[in-house]
Amino acid sequence: MIILFTDFGMCDPYVGQIKARLAEYAPAQTVVDLLHEVPDYNSHAGAHLLAAFAAGFQPGSVFLAVVDPGVGTPRDGVVVMAGGRWYVGPDNGLLSLVAARNTDTRLWRITWLPDDLSRTFHGRDVFAVIAAEIARGEFPESKLSQIDKLEVEFDAGELSRVIYIDHFGNAWVGVRNVPKDAQVSAAGKLFKYSESFGFVGKGEGFWFNNSVGLLELAVNRGNAAISFGLKVGDVVQVKDSTTTFH
Amino acid sequence: MIILFTDFGMCDPYVGQIKARLAEYAPAQTVVDLLHEVPDYNSHAGAHLLAAFAAGFQPGSVFLAVVDPGVGTPRDGVVVMAGGRWYVGPDNGLLSLVAARNTDTRLWRITWLPDDLSRTFHGRDVFAVIAAEIARGEFPESKLSQIDKLEVEFDAGELSRVIYIDHFGNAWVGVRNVPKDAQVSAAGKLFKYSESFGFVGKGEGFWFNNSVGLLELAVNRGNAAISFGLKVGDVVQVKDSTTTFH
Amino acid sequence: MIILFTDFGMCDPYVGQIKARLAEYAPAQTVVDLLHEVPDYNSHAGAHLLAAFAAGFQPGSVFLAVVDPGVGTPRDGVVVMAGGRWYVGPDNGLLSLVAARNTDTRLWRITWLPDDLSRTFHGRDVFAVIAAEIARGEFPESKLSQIDKLEVEFDAGELSRVIYIDHFGNAWVGVRNVPKDAQVSAAGKLFKYSESFGFVGKGEGFWFNNSVGLLELAVNRGNAAISFGLKVGDVVQVKDSTTTFH
Repeated sequence: MIILFTDFGMCDPYVGQIKARLAEYAPAQTVVDLLHEVPDYNSHAGAHLLAAFAAGFQPGSVFLAVVDPGVGTPRDGVVVMAGGRWYVGPDNGLLSLVAARNTDTRLWRITWLPDDLSRTFHGRDVFAVIAAEIARGEFPESKLSQIDKLEVEFDAGELSRVIYIDHFGNAWVGVRNVPKDAQVSAAGKLFKYSESFGFVGKGEGFWFNNSVGLLELAVNRGNAAISFGLKVGDVVQVKDSTTTFH
Repeated sequence: MIILFTDFGMCDPYVGQIKARLAEYAPAQTVVDLLHEVPDYNSHAGAHLLAAFAAGFQPGSVFLAVVDPGVGTPRDGVVVMAGGRWYVGPDNGLLSLVAARNTDTRLWRITWLPDDLSRTFHGRDVFAVIAAEIARGEFPESKLSQIDKLEVEFDAGELSRVIYIDHFGNAWVGVRNVPKDAQVSAAGKLFKYSESFGFVGKGEGFWFNNSVGLLELAVNRGNAAISFGLKVGDVVQVKDSTTTFH
Repeated sequence: MIILFTDFGMCDPYVGQIKARLAEYAPAQTVVDLLHEVPDYNSHAGAHLLAAFAAGFQPGSVFLAVVDPGVGTPRDGVVVMAGGRWYVGPDNGLLSLVAARNTDTRLWRITWLPDDLSRTFHGRDVFAVIAAEIARGEFPESKLSQIDKLEVEFDAGELSRVIYIDHFGNAWVGVRNVPKDAQVSAAGKLFKYSESFGFVGKGEGFWFNNSVGLLELAVNRGNAAISFGLKVGDVVQVKDSTTTFH
């Protein structure tokens, strides 16, 4: 399975071009759109999101992960094997959390470029081809060079900021598995804990550990982002008996 | 074929997680995104939309239908067989119209929960698994218990309100097969009938019976929702020689 | 492979209905969503976009191309074979650029209509069926009549206007392969040339030849459409040593 994770936009003509390339190079593979609305150009938020999603996909899955504002500049492309899963994308930190949070991690730099390379769409021209070859079980050794370390590495701990806002207005935060008795506040407001939406009043705000293990701020049948003025990058304070993130 | 019908949003990372689960449990099945923009939390509008779409899909199709603001509370999950098609989703009225409008209807409560159940994403953890098993022809009897009646049932007649607005600004109404000589008004305005867009002037409003048999308000090359201030839930008045809906 | 290119909207329930039809008539074919956000009703912009994308798809590909504000009126449906690729859609100019820009072009009018034809969704009822038959290698001769000329033909040269704006705010222009030393201006501003985003300052505007060969106006890590007030239809001035488009 090839999983797409990008900031290319679900509605723009970029994803379709990638899928046409994948269909050419790996016709038998299932391709799944996980997310094409990673906050634009934000490889930091993307890295935390990708690391949270990864565990939900089977070992052997290949992630084509592209948030790449440096496309066309001398930044490298890389392949990461971590937790039994494969990741292909730019070396700008996006893949650094999945690399750091696993113990079986192996890294390769992509040394190959196609003859008809565009300057602005390596997701289609380079990363899709490499991902397709890995997915179909033909590891492209001749196009890669093993490396010891990524060029760009983000802190692999928690990121106590809003990293994604969904269409319901729910705000995802880059902090994992928060204890129920923690104090969570954002936008000057203390949020209460609830296991799910239907246990708080209509229009009431709360926090919960979401279905991929991240802290999430929400409003039952309402829009937390609008109600509390939350946006990607906002700091969220999380205090429990042992730790404070802020 | 598995058909997805939800309010999860086309652009958020929920649909991709469901598709990964379906690919694992029913790898040979075609999966079609019918609609992921059912008005948020609105199982009533969703029920009328789903019932209108159903006839366009072949018998044996399996609908994974999830508009589920009560996820994580004690509401049940159900399987409905109606009109030769299968439906899997929450027992909150969403499936009650397809159930009521067919004569071959059979109903089951889902008694199974997976070990790694999340509190907020039963679409992925429960409904996708059941839908996959039905689609691949292995009816999961041991995970179900036959029932006589759904817990939540909506009125199975017409719903004379706006139930969906598309990106053109066209407003769908939950009333079927309206005679051409009916009087249709909304937002204080009487709409004229036209068979299609190109038969009225540019910028002119009209109503028609749309491609799934529902009343639709539109503007030729314009945006009816903006022009007339229409939104989901607005009442539409429909009077013909035999009936008045309002 | 069947490639979808429409203004039906990625988030509305139209594309799913088309895919269900394709799955019925051409179950073994890969279907790729290239673009469902062609500017609404704008077959002129659509024609230039489609012609730019075509070369990136393999010969034998079948494009289902529908921007069809005249649906239900007497406008014809057509099949175009051009550059070794197939196109199915309305005869309103949308397919006229791919037809004019190739030398192997052949044209057919669609003479068949299904019994259960809707008045407003020929994309599903007519064009999808024809595209499916071509894709599965059974050319539907009995449903077609060869013609010499399309009813509606746009100028096959450059279109020096904004024809698409993506979610980053990048503005695509219908002019191909512009020399680096050309003078490009829009919204009263002269844009500088850059090969890609990362070579100009953060927030700085520039133009480049994009990954399908069209002129594109962008801002590094910013939104060109918002920064410069660009919208679809805006004139862009392009002057090089040999030609002026304006």
